[in-house]
Amino acid sequence: MVTAFKMIIEYDGSAFCGWQIQNDAPTIQAAIENTLQRMTGQRIRVTASGRTDAGVHALGQVAGFRCDTRLSAMQLHKGLNSLLTPDIVIHSLTPVAVSFHPRFDALSKIYRYHILNRPLPKAIGRQYVWHLRRPLDVAAMQRAAGHLVGTHDFKAFEGAGSPRKTTVRRVMKASVAWTDGDRLVFEIEADGFLRFMVRNIVGTLVDVGLGRRSADDFKRILSSRERELAGPTAPPQGLFLVQVKYPV
Amino acid sequence: MVTAFKMIIEYDGSAFCGWQIQNDAPTIQAAIENTLQRMTGQRIRVTASGRTDAGVHALGQVAGFRCDTRLSAMQLHKGLNSLLTPDIVIHSLTPVAVSFHPRFDALSKIYRYHILNRPLPKAIGRQYVWHLRRPLDVAAMQRAAGHLVGTHDFKAFEGAGSPRKTTVRRVMKASVAWTDGDRLVFEIEADGFLRFMVRNIVGTLVDVGLGRRSADDFKRILSSRERELAGPTAPPQGLFLVQVKYPV
Repeated sequence: MVTAFKMIIEYDGSAFCGWQIQNDAPTIQAAIENTLQRMTGQRIRVTASGRTDAGVHALGQVAGFRCDTRLSAMQLHKGLNSLLTPDIVIHSLTPVAVSFHPRFDALSKIYRYHILNRPLPKAIGRQYVWHLRRPLDVAAMQRAAGHLVGTHDFKAFEGAGSPRKTTVRRVMKASVAWTDGDRLVFEIEADGFLRFMVRNIVGTLVDVGLGRRSADDFKRILSSRERELAGPTAPPQGLFLVQVKYPV
Repeated sequence: MVTAFKMIIEYDGSAFCGWQIQNDAPTIQAAIENTLQRMTGQRIRVTASGRTDAGVHALGQVAGFRCDTRLSAMQLHKGLNSLLTPDIVIHSLTPVAVSFHPRFDALSKIYRYHILNRPLPKAIGRQYVWHLRRPLDVAAMQRAAGHLVGTHDFKAFEGAGSPRKTTVRRVMKASVAWTDGDRLVFEIEADGFLRFMVRNIVGTLVDVGLGRRSADDFKRILSSRERELAGPTAPPQGLFLVQVKYPV
């Protein structure tokens, strides 16, 4: 009998070329599918709530798969965690309705981006932050981030080469706050994200923080739907997929 | 004119075979000396407050060197940070009296050891903790750690193959405390440390936490001066040299 399973997954994306399977490149999806094959002898397709790009991390990516196996959910869970590389940890693995779809059923996702803002870089944990030496104007970044909330066409922040049917998304929350004294955290919750959307937003917010643009410019860039007006794409290592929410 | 310099150094020890220069192995000392040679054309010996072993990290290692250069302390500092690998960061580089000796002048050093104590490992930051699944009896570990404070012969916790003239050390502080809900931090300050001393103490404290030994056993092991009675050596990745103190 075919059973469907839902997994919540943490991974350190540093050594991976993103979530999605590619030829001759290490990806998180490939690592999990290969491990499931070792355990079950079956080629099982694992579907995530969405891709994460090369070098991006996850604290709570959600993925699902279906298979006909005599292994229990607990056995699959323990087996995966003992066989997988230590940069991938399955937090939970539970049976779900076969109709469950990690991507289409998701109500919203939360991403966080970490910026280390101080003159000196750090050695410990450098793989999880974007280091920026010049002091950022956080109040201006907060005002700019406020413009993100609501339903907007985010075409100005969409990466090239991955057109979607619609570039309209609803942002429930967007905030910029200090943590640990010298680390700035940008958090955003939306019903969906375009490719590179968070990193393009962060790159543009940093332009605001550096005084290159104003919070009003940020609002105009959003309204313009013109990618060329937005700032550079922030590097991947500061980005974490934190949580994917589903109907209870 | 020869000037002496003092550096405070942070490093991620994951990719290094410890502080001290070895043939054909990457070490922190070698990385810094090679970079100083690139900058000055001179072979300069860098002396630390003490070695750290392979895989051990530092937030505040102290090292010094002397050289005859026209470069200012600020130029040396910026040059080192821009040329060194990102897993080594020089926090400060300042001129000191030529009589300064990072090891002999040190009054005390503080080490911290991080244990992740929960059923699941973590992917993010796994390179900075020792993961232990079984719940530890922290109260028992705290009682045991209390026995470390004072002047004792720490021979029972000395690693093999590195005999010192005396194995007596004075411990000013030793504590075990929770942080972030599931991380246990052991902190110890002493006027000096024997090789593997902190990791052997942590391995023995964990035996206490797991109920294999009591806090009284721990006290007896310390008094025995017998390495065979102590617990296993904790792995290196949880250990940080936090600070080295000098007379003001």
